[in-house]
Amino acid sequence: MEMDPQQKRAALRAINYGLYIVTATHGGQTAAAGVNWVTQASFDPPLVVVCIKPGTETHDLALESGGFVVNVVGADQIDVAKSFFRPTVVEGDTLNGFTFHTSPVTGAPHLVDLPYWFEATVTDTVTTGDHTIIVGQVVGAGVHDDTVEPLVLRSTGMNYGG
Amino acid sequence: MEMDPQQKRAALRAINYGLYIVTATHGGQTAAAGVNWVTQASFDPPLVVVCIKPGTETHDLALESGGFVVNVVGADQIDVAKSFFRPTVVEGDTLNGFTFHTSPVTGAPHLVDLPYWFEATVTDTVTTGDHTIIVGQVVGAGVHDDTVEPLVLRSTGMNYGG
Repeated sequence: MEMDPQQKRAALRAINYGLYIVTATHGGQTAAAGVNWVTQASFDPPLVVVCIKPGTETHDLALESGGFVVNVVGADQIDVAKSFFRPTVVEGDTLNGFTFHTSPVTGAPHLVDLPYWFEATVTDTVTTGDHTIIVGQVVGAGVHDDTVEPLVLRSTGMNYGG
Repeated sequence: MEMDPQQKRAALRAINYGLYIVTATHGGQTAAAGVNWVTQASFDPPLVVVCIKPGTETHDLALESGGFVVNVVGADQIDVAKSFFRPTVVEGDTLNGFTFHTSPVTGAPHLVDLPYWFEATVTDTVTTGDHTIIVGQVVGAGVHDDTVEPLVLRSTGMNYGG
């Protein structure tokens, strides 16, 4: 039986997501990308899954360095997120114009304007599909503003899925 | 450097989720469970990741049968979802009191009262953590009511993560 592509798309787009800026640093290079295919995957050890397209700089630096940072975009921060849909520009202590601090374990940047971040070291990858399923153990985390609600991607009218 | 457990929890709870009833059927047995660690992971082939605790009946039947169904809970359906936080009861064509149809490829049930569903066959598993990261290729999907918005787990005040 053939699967109806429109029903498949509608059903997969019914998965709810937030929006995250994933960063990675290796060999003096830093990249950042907007990503929404993110989930926790274990409590102990704390694991997360992040799915990123091969060939993107963030993907390659995450795998080469063995680590990455996930920055959570807040409910009213879609404009911040959109600035990371363009190529990454590092100038001084800013990333695409937004101030960052260096995360202690991975050395990848976390953005001080975004409310929550965590860093992870890569434990497993699955390369069956057109994105790499990167499993990482959470080794650092921080809160810049715990009053901010995370963005629900659906509320923006944008989606990445289907 | 030690990670602050409270900051870790707050940052991981900032990931946004929907809520899903995952079902699996094998050898005449059927189980269903409420799950929120779900994401798409590839467009072509269409892959999803679902993270489920080992030892639960749904986990074991999904791996034994090599397939599972994900039913998307709608915005006003938290009470339906809560009925699946209890052990699964199959009576005739109902699962915990809700009518189901049998999905064509996996044979696992999809619930006609929930707006969207898809079924997947298992392609990979990662067992590094305390939940199994199950990767599945989407092989069937359907829409019962495309007017229903999917539930955002955060909006219920419940969470599973941190």
